[in-house]
Amino acid sequence: MNTEILCVGTELLLGDTVNTNASYICLKLAEVGIDCFYHSVVGDNSEKIKSGLDIALKRADLIIITGGLGPTDDDITMQSAADYFSKDLVFNEDAYQKVREFFESRNRKVPQKAKKQAYFPEGAEIIPNFTGTAPGVFWKINGKILIILPGVPDELYKMWETSIQEKLRSFSDSVLIKRFLKFFGIPEGTVGEKIKDLMALENPTVAPLVSDGQVNVRIVAKAATVQQAESSIKNIEKQVLQRIGEFFWGYDNDSLEKVVGQALAQKKLSVSVAESCTGGLISSRLTDISGSSSYIKLNLTTYSNEAKINTLKVNPELIDKYGAVSEPVAREMAENVRKYSKTDIGLGVTGIAGPAGGTPEKPVGLVYIGLSDKDRAVVHRVNINPEFERKVVKHRASQYALNFLRLFITEFQNISG
Amino acid sequence: MNTEILCVGTELLLGDTVNTNASYICLKLAEVGIDCFYHSVVGDNSEKIKSGLDIALKRADLIIITGGLGPTDDDITMQSAADYFSKDLVFNEDAYQKVREFFESRNRKVPQKAKKQAYFPEGAEIIPNFTGTAPGVFWKINGKILIILPGVPDELYKMWETSIQEKLRSFSDSVLIKRFLKFFGIPEGTVGEKIKDLMALENPTVAPLVSDGQVNVRIVAKAATVQQAESSIKNIEKQVLQRIGEFFWGYDNDSLEKVVGQALAQKKLSVSVAESCTGGLISSRLTDISGSSSYIKLNLTTYSNEAKINTLKVNPELIDKYGAVSEPVAREMAENVRKYSKTDIGLGVTGIAGPAGGTPEKPVGLVYIGLSDKDRAVVHRVNINPEFERKVVKHRASQYALNFLRLFITEFQNISG
Repeated sequence: MNTEILCVGTELLLGDTVNTNASYICLKLAEVGIDCFYHSVVGDNSEKIKSGLDIALKRADLIIITGGLGPTDDDITMQSAADYFSKDLVFNEDAYQKVREFFESRNRKVPQKAKKQAYFPEGAEIIPNFTGTAPGVFWKINGKILIILPGVPDELYKMWETSIQEKLRSFSDSVLIKRFLKFFGIPEGTVGEKIKDLMALENPTVAPLVSDGQVNVRIVAKAATVQQAESSIKNIEKQVLQRIGEFFWGYDNDSLEKVVGQALAQKKLSVSVAESCTGGLISSRLTDISGSSSYIKLNLTTYSNEAKINTLKVNPELIDKYGAVSEPVAREMAENVRKYSKTDIGLGVTGIAGPAGGTPEKPVGLVYIGLSDKDRAVVHRVNINPEFERKVVKHRASQYALNFLRLFITEFQNISG
Repeated sequence: MNTEILCVGTELLLGDTVNTNASYICLKLAEVGIDCFYHSVVGDNSEKIKSGLDIALKRADLIIITGGLGPTDDDITMQSAADYFSKDLVFNEDAYQKVREFFESRNRKVPQKAKKQAYFPEGAEIIPNFTGTAPGVFWKINGKILIILPGVPDELYKMWETSIQEKLRSFSDSVLIKRFLKFFGIPEGTVGEKIKDLMALENPTVAPLVSDGQVNVRIVAKAATVQQAESSIKNIEKQVLQRIGEFFWGYDNDSLEKVVGQALAQKKLSVSVAESCTGGLISSRLTDISGSSSYIKLNLTTYSNEAKINTLKVNPELIDKYGAVSEPVAREMAENVRKYSKTDIGLGVTGIAGPAGGTPEKPVGLVYIGLSDKDRAVVHRVNINPEFERKVVKHRASQYALNFLRLFITEFQNISG
């Protein structure tokens, strides 16, 4: 069974509302192994809804329509769908009772227009709405299935979880499982060359995707059972990691701050951070992780040279000679924040976030990342695209810093462990 | 001229990626008065791209295609569009030179596959990509306009701003101007009551929208000229601010860190921040603003009690008696960071970000925000919904802190100015 999602709503076409309903529904369909091949969006206009439905019926078996079920005059989705099939809308007393209860339980008068929300195409099954007033329908007609749901995300999600997901499971004899492998420091083109043969597979499918300047490899397996899908994913994963495993750092929803936090907690190491161009972002990301207080005690954002000298005790001669954005200063920041805060590892980051402050020798996007423990001090230089806006430069710099920190923690074991 | 946006990408159909490109493009089209009546999404499949393009060409004059311009084998958008019109892809040496430079400036080998990104449909104008390797095209063909752009949002945005927006302006005879007025501390229901009459207008339209826990009022005016639209917006804006202006803090894309930064720069004041539960987020937000180095010198993230005592010199007896999350500790954090860093204003924030660490007396979401200058020290207590996840609690706490800082700066003038 393949699916089209048809979202109705002028707000989507004005750009004020991002179409999160479509991605939500796709994720849910994928879980039960139902393919979605098309999304479309039309405004609250009867002709456009009917024409969108016509296109969808020609290329899909299951059509999921969202939006336009409200009480106001521009909510015409239910009427348009009934018109398309030359069916009448029929009043349902039970549904109207629930609409009345919704308002009465909130001590509000039932608006005249609310009655409209108790009319449904004849022959359609009513899908109750627990958090709003507009019920949906599950409607088998002409060999196709139409599901019509409200566009308010919270209402849609609740109705889907309660009434739709299990119903759809019976239409599918397969499950689909997805895994993302996350990499750092290898270009998309190189990944493509290394796993070209795997990308030609039909099941599981394998694809490199760029996100946030780095590559994720997505593996999607379809199978009769969860076990079968998992096993075929495991097999591909192994092959991918054999080829480019040195750049691999995490799965699915993993973040670098989470992976770094796990590594620190596992090795019982603590870290402190001295930031300049990232302005506290690395510190904030590390503390996004619950339990991070066990490995983070103190972070310093020494934005001015004065603060670098007075608080971090960076040697002013180094700043004079090499500049605040330099390899020696990054090294001292890492060393000194570690000693000052008595942690196992120190991280020091200095760079030029832009848009001002760049020179031909030290352009915007130049960032030095220093790492230090009791045995070692290393400094990495990275060049971030100076065309990015300041916030993106900061974010990318924090990505590099967290990745270098991750690798530094791994190596920590070899030397001191 | 009416438009269809055709997004290409299997990741959109799997639900992994939310279609933010479509909403971005719609917002930009609206600015130049061009209507968008349809969005559609298809996977990385040549037949489906061509069939989607066929549908779009029947109902729109301007078709904007995004995605599928990468270097890998499943990136086939450019080829599919050329095939549809029976045109060849032609190699462009200049474009390839830029691709090579992209890799070489990063000290990376140019991948074999990257060459693919220098082929374009014959007759199409090349749109340069400043932040990635895949250029786009602006292609007039058969009386229609096709714009093909990469799907990576940062690349798309930059290309749109640089090369597309002005080009499209010449195709429209009306403008639509939108303004958001941003408020802090007034509930949506109250705003709705105060501006009920304005919300009934047809042009400009006026609507309150909740974003990030606070209310924005959106005003949208359509007119023949920018001047006419601006003047009708100004008129409404004046009426809104007459009624609820005391809660107003900014416009459109203003952020609290930007508004705070402007106020600090204008009054030549400096600020330092001592953070606990926000972990560096306030510092990072303040330094997101270009030029912030003129008013920020040093921020401290004192996550542990030890760091609060050793670095910030918070009186350990206060922590013993009242706890680290308390009114007196927030006050000392603000006072001491100000004195230590010799700034005009000190901000100190301590709270419970969760999900662990809450008690009946001090639940998750409890945050104390201290502010100090040479004459005053005040502490605000806020309770953020403990159901929010940790990152949201941190973000909301930073919103409150920046808003209190904003108000504190305003009052600074009255006392010391």
